[in-house]
Amino acid sequence: MNISTADIKAMEQRYRGTFINSLPGFKCLNLVATIGASGAHNLGLFSSTFHIGANPPLLGLVFRPESSHHDTLTNIKQSGFYTLNNVLPSFYEKAHLTSARYESGVSEFEACGLTPEILSDFQVPFVAESTIKIGLELRETINLSINNTTIVIGEIIQIQLSDEVKLSPDGYVDHISAQTVTVAGLDSYFSAEALGRLAYAKPNIPAKRID
Amino acid sequence: MNISTADIKAMEQRYRGTFINSLPGFKCLNLVATIGASGAHNLGLFSSTFHIGANPPLLGLVFRPESSHHDTLTNIKQSGFYTLNNVLPSFYEKAHLTSARYESGVSEFEACGLTPEILSDFQVPFVAESTIKIGLELRETINLSINNTTIVIGEIIQIQLSDEVKLSPDGYVDHISAQTVTVAGLDSYFSAEALGRLAYAKPNIPAKRID
Repeated sequence: MNISTADIKAMEQRYRGTFINSLPGFKCLNLVATIGASGAHNLGLFSSTFHIGANPPLLGLVFRPESSHHDTLTNIKQSGFYTLNNVLPSFYEKAHLTSARYESGVSEFEACGLTPEILSDFQVPFVAESTIKIGLELRETINLSINNTTIVIGEIIQIQLSDEVKLSPDGYVDHISAQTVTVAGLDSYFSAEALGRLAYAKPNIPAKRID
Repeated sequence: MNISTADIKAMEQRYRGTFINSLPGFKCLNLVATIGASGAHNLGLFSSTFHIGANPPLLGLVFRPESSHHDTLTNIKQSGFYTLNNVLPSFYEKAHLTSARYESGVSEFEACGLTPEILSDFQVPFVAESTIKIGLELRETINLSINNTTIVIGEIIQIQLSDEVKLSPDGYVDHISAQTVTVAGLDSYFSAEALGRLAYAKPNIPAKRID
């Protein structure tokens, strides 16, 4: 099937949203927790985390203008801190529910049955049910005039790995042991099954498995 | 295990790169094809594709300053066009090999055993072995002064889906039928297994499967 610009433009709006969101592949899924000026907890599900650099350790996150996650962006700008927490098969339905349009000030932790966990020296809660918990400090926001989205760049300043998460001697975090869930589109969730970890690629030498 | 900023700073450079790259979860994996000023084909593997919007249909892509993919960025800026192609289990090792540092001008298609496919009205090749092929036109590049990375924003202008790719009546692209591979870190590849597709989330209503 060949789809052109004209075909994309002619699509019904929700159809196009579902189609374009699901087209590129599996995405990085994280529950983003923040805290409001009043101290209220906020939790939202995001699939736009992307790696920007390891030194300093930076992650990007995209906020759509029509997003139901306005509180999240407001809170990040106001407090300067937020946490990313992975999603497991045991609670992906609860994580999905955080996408519902709760009133401002309602804690999605409470409404969706997830547990806020306060770790030492970090005012923003983590998700107790997650096995990989990442605390970030806001470094930069970029407004994209092309479609009014905002890219938030944060530096990783605290990490909590549960005991079951395997960390390889070379620093590799094993998401099979962490039971991390991935997502395609806005609403389709997946577990992962390992194909193989491959050695550093060198010209004209066949790929070699290292696990 | 609790890891602090001081711990991250103290990590050996390659350890930190592997650790931070693999920490947030599974990523969107695409072979990016471009064409040089001389007409030479270029192919590189990227795990930084992220969704920016559906109308217009925009995707972001991150280029690291020390990347082996300098040709890719040069070519995109020069020609204004590029393609994203999904990776299947049948050729993920070949896709991985495109990451090797081939000399400028060498076609990674040829060096790695993948087939360039020219579709009508699009000068940049697609990957014939892929089942989801996306043609993009450059819209914007953003230089991040925080760590000298570049974000490339492109608009989707052509899409080719193979016959085996299931497209739902609501526009959802099924990556199980497409056999799309995902990646964690720089070198660990995975197939996906469906947990479930969930209905649009509404406050205080339990998540419901729609597949």
